[in-house]
Amino acid sequence: MTSYHHQQNDETPIIHRTADYQPPRSWRTWLIGHPLTTADASHQTIGKAIGLAVFASDALSSTAYATQEIMFILAAAGTAAFSNVFPISIAIVVLLVIVSVSYEQIIHAYPGGGGAYIVARDNLGEVPAQVAGAALLTDYILTVAVSISSGVAQLVSAFPALFDYRVWIAVVLVFFIMIINLRGVKESGAAFAIPSYFFIVMMYLTVGIGLFRYATGSLGAVIDPPEMEALRGMAAITPFLILHAFSSGTAALTGIEAISNGITAFKEPRSRNAGITLIWMASILATLFMGISFLAGKIHAIPAESETVISQLARTVLGGQNVLYLAVIAATTVILIMACNTSFAGFPRLSALLAIDGFLPRQLAFRGSRLVYSRGIGALALIASGLVLLFNASVTGLIPLYAIGVFMSFTLSQAGMSKRWWKIGHLQPGAEVKERGSVLRYERAWQLKMIINGFGAVCTAVVMMIFAVTKFTDGAWVVLILIPVMVVTFSGIHRHYKHVATQLSLENYGAPPRVQRHRVLLLVSGVHCGSLKALRYALDLSPDVTAVHVSIDAEEAKHLQDKWETWGEGVRLILLDSPYRLMIEPLLEYIEEVIQQRQPNELITIVVPQFVARHWYHGILHAQTAFYLRLVLLFKPDVVVTDVPYLVD
Amino acid sequence: MTSYHHQQNDETPIIHRTADYQPPRSWRTWLIGHPLTTADASHQTIGKAIGLAVFASDALSSTAYATQEIMFILAAAGTAAFSNVFPISIAIVVLLVIVSVSYEQIIHAYPGGGGAYIVARDNLGEVPAQVAGAALLTDYILTVAVSISSGVAQLVSAFPALFDYRVWIAVVLVFFIMIINLRGVKESGAAFAIPSYFFIVMMYLTVGIGLFRYATGSLGAVIDPPEMEALRGMAAITPFLILHAFSSGTAALTGIEAISNGITAFKEPRSRNAGITLIWMASILATLFMGISFLAGKIHAIPAESETVISQLARTVLGGQNVLYLAVIAATTVILIMACNTSFAGFPRLSALLAIDGFLPRQLAFRGSRLVYSRGIGALALIASGLVLLFNASVTGLIPLYAIGVFMSFTLSQAGMSKRWWKIGHLQPGAEVKERGSVLRYERAWQLKMIINGFGAVCTAVVMMIFAVTKFTDGAWVVLILIPVMVVTFSGIHRHYKHVATQLSLENYGAPPRVQRHRVLLLVSGVHCGSLKALRYALDLSPDVTAVHVSIDAEEAKHLQDKWETWGEGVRLILLDSPYRLMIEPLLEYIEEVIQQRQPNELITIVVPQFVARHWYHGILHAQTAFYLRLVLLFKPDVVVTDVPYLVD
Repeated sequence: MTSYHHQQNDETPIIHRTADYQPPRSWRTWLIGHPLTTADASHQTIGKAIGLAVFASDALSSTAYATQEIMFILAAAGTAAFSNVFPISIAIVVLLVIVSVSYEQIIHAYPGGGGAYIVARDNLGEVPAQVAGAALLTDYILTVAVSISSGVAQLVSAFPALFDYRVWIAVVLVFFIMIINLRGVKESGAAFAIPSYFFIVMMYLTVGIGLFRYATGSLGAVIDPPEMEALRGMAAITPFLILHAFSSGTAALTGIEAISNGITAFKEPRSRNAGITLIWMASILATLFMGISFLAGKIHAIPAESETVISQLARTVLGGQNVLYLAVIAATTVILIMACNTSFAGFPRLSALLAIDGFLPRQLAFRGSRLVYSRGIGALALIASGLVLLFNASVTGLIPLYAIGVFMSFTLSQAGMSKRWWKIGHLQPGAEVKERGSVLRYERAWQLKMIINGFGAVCTAVVMMIFAVTKFTDGAWVVLILIPVMVVTFSGIHRHYKHVATQLSLENYGAPPRVQRHRVLLLVSGVHCGSLKALRYALDLSPDVTAVHVSIDAEEAKHLQDKWETWGEGVRLILLDSPYRLMIEPLLEYIEEVIQQRQPNELITIVVPQFVARHWYHGILHAQTAFYLRLVLLFKPDVVVTDVPYLVD
Repeated sequence: MTSYHHQQNDETPIIHRTADYQPPRSWRTWLIGHPLTTADASHQTIGKAIGLAVFASDALSSTAYATQEIMFILAAAGTAAFSNVFPISIAIVVLLVIVSVSYEQIIHAYPGGGGAYIVARDNLGEVPAQVAGAALLTDYILTVAVSISSGVAQLVSAFPALFDYRVWIAVVLVFFIMIINLRGVKESGAAFAIPSYFFIVMMYLTVGIGLFRYATGSLGAVIDPPEMEALRGMAAITPFLILHAFSSGTAALTGIEAISNGITAFKEPRSRNAGITLIWMASILATLFMGISFLAGKIHAIPAESETVISQLARTVLGGQNVLYLAVIAATTVILIMACNTSFAGFPRLSALLAIDGFLPRQLAFRGSRLVYSRGIGALALIASGLVLLFNASVTGLIPLYAIGVFMSFTLSQAGMSKRWWKIGHLQPGAEVKERGSVLRYERAWQLKMIINGFGAVCTAVVMMIFAVTKFTDGAWVVLILIPVMVVTFSGIHRHYKHVATQLSLENYGAPPRVQRHRVLLLVSGVHCGSLKALRYALDLSPDVTAVHVSIDAEEAKHLQDKWETWGEGVRLILLDSPYRLMIEPLLEYIEEVIQQRQPNELITIVVPQFVARHWYHGILHAQTAFYLRLVLLFKPDVVVTDVPYLVD
């Protein structure tokens, strides 16, 4: 029921009232569930177990290909070079630990979420923050396009009959995942938890059995390994080759930042829950990745387009293409598709933060009926499907665009944290300083933390630059153009909002003079009950009424004139002859003239009789000039437009 | 310059004013030419020579296939049956003469145009008139689809590489012809005159040389005639076969009615000019058709899918596949495409007549910038392209739908004329009776004229029924369903217009009571210069103002409340808490409540502050709630909506 709450006040009566509007059941209810009230927000948070499923699928899916990426580069120097796979993997895990520790600190320092964007904003300034935001948003979009396209590619290689429909399958999948995400973070987490945990279990099983068989000496080499491509095995093992392999392997790190953007999705105490989830995720990622890299070396796996390293490992460890093997392959396919769900969790939250700061349209900060940022989710689905269509669901076309953004954000977030330690080191012990997104408190050993974050920033910057250079001509240049363009757009939007706020501000608002004259123009298309109702309204507004009729037919105008003399209550009528049979342009010209003749403090109101039919489709049978005219007048700042409806029923 | 013309009047000042609005040059000017003033109408009429090109292309193009259609049916009884081709053609020409004489009379009796529709309306009643209108409109649409599709089919058989694009070529051709027609009847006539006359000349040349060579005995049989299909030649020559061949040959008559619909396109004296053009057209059609049928028999032409009879005739008469032969084939292809131009002349005029009578949306009676019924032209192009797309530009799919409509209109127009002679016969000699579309004067020998028209009606009715029966399962049933559906739609539209006219009529309009109370609701999204401008306007309307704010964020609502206490001029503020974060629905619910509490003669006005940005694209950055709300309120008959704009610049 409607509840009222009257507030006692000296001057202005202010009434609080809760709308008892109940959203009706509709196809939307069926599709995304019952609307939730704002007060339900705390029930829509997730725990650590679901959080891991929502935010980790992207990072964990990279274990499916990171080892192979290292081996593809090393293959240039022949199979002997594969002895470097495990050492390189250890180095990547070290970088993973540095980046994870850094994000762990970010999660506790910035409990409102936002990751690299907020860290950069509060420590490095607006432009680095916008760069971080642009880089991450780009990366989230690409993650969706790449993971869906690669998942569909696997599906199509299993069912070649679907090849012609691959693009549409990909688009449908994107919208399917969009809808699940529109149902709310809790429901999408529950839906995606099972495949995520299934993947984790299957991978641990494979790695565990593999290590056990290695320890017991029963693990042999791959039977019938795929052939390496002929041209490989010619190069020497140079430091550059090792570095290149290292940077390719850092694909394992993508997705690690997602939790820091989505802290607000977690149950209270949310920083603690998010932090623990991050530690879990990093631990699973590190152990699986190291285990796979180690075993891949031992079984002499061969990187090839025709069979993945994971497949070789699984059939060697599990003893052939049995049920367990098929389960591993299925779990891998599903997790590759689900990697995109992390983007659906991260993109809307990040774009809402940018929107609240005025860098993106404010509507992106609006929470939909299920309390998720539904417009951000929709925007992500639309842009990603657009990319899928543009690149014809080809993974190779999209891959080069990928991963630069995320390393740019790693670099900025760690550089920002370095700066933050420096600021903390220069505080008095025990002092507290409030910033926009966090509170600074003195800590000991800040120098060490600053150096670790600084080293991490340098490492990730180097990886980013290797990516940019090695993949520049493959398409990475697109990202390097896109990010500046996005930053410029963000700034433009920000300027607009600031400008509007200044213009509308009441700072210098003096008491304006009261309206002194009120001139009313009444548009008349014919003399009938409807226009006479509008005439009465116009006369109620002001005695200064002018009726205007656009005449395209002299006979009709004569008829109208006769009727007006009877019914027009003596109001002045202007017949505008329109030789070119146009209705709107002559009216606008006349209105423009009236505006120019305006006196100081004179108000001009245009009264438009609006025909309202019983059924919307009757609208087709009427010219709707009033409607078009109003659309045009809407953007005229000098006149007030009033619709006086008349119903026919 | 603007000219004023004040009218002396006792009470009401009425000012005549000619808008000096000059339509700007734009892409429209480039596409369809400069706008014409209504006063230019008399310059936009056409003479007999151009009129023949505009209105005759459909009828003349049928000489390209009518003989062949007769032969296709007779082929069932073997080549011996072809001796009946010429006698059947003579019978068809007799029918052509009857129908033409009837239309000649219609043109003089109904100088306002409209053909079968007007004749049926004034003599047979509303339902037959609507049937005639529906039948003709259907036929015009089909003519466009069929002629364009068959033209493209010829083009594609010459350039097979274009086959995959045939549907789009057809659609582009439809819109090309649409644009030429939008340029005005005079310009389209000039554009189409050259190919029309080229076709006429080439055909007379072929028939003339053919007859000359026949007379001098130098005309042989076709060399290498195409083979007849194997299964043919088994049936006997029954009266039914002859009748069937006759009805197929009556395809020659389609298009004969076009001039009667378009009399108003002709220069004054328009009935006379239109009548002479009709006589020309019928004469050319009759002579060419008879000549072709005669010669086809003499050269032993064979009907076949692989080569048309016209092609066989041309190469036999002209002595091989030389330049003249190619010119005949090219002229035939072009006239087949141009046949659709007759529909572009007839359809818009007929639909405008139906619109004026209130059977179609009134907008169809609007004459565009070039004084043609541009909306009818556009509608025809859209519907015909839709058909082309639906039938994949296939002629065989469309042909069965074709020609029933035109024979239905022949039957109705001749039955109507019969009835008219009967009415005339029962007048006093010398008496004159005015009807809506014509004047009745006594004439002698009315009995004979009545019998001729009655006989014509019976003949065309028989042909129509043969069409309907023989082609029923091929798709003619579509037309037989479509025409009744259209008639029902016409009646529905008519009822709606009549109802609106009654409702708005001032017949029983008493002097209504003046407005006694005026309640104003002011929608407030925030307290700023813009909403305060709207508040001042609201207070100017009435002292009874209530401000309403939908609150989706408690903090923001508190902030607004504080500001309202300072700036709200003591106006009552209602804070509507929206637990589901909806803006529009809670407002509508509240407005509904206010409407229900309304006192007698109380007026409710909703004042909506409208943000107006300097550039339209800034609109993307604002929620536009006001805009959506107004769209919804537009269809509420009980409230007046007032937009108070505020500009940010």
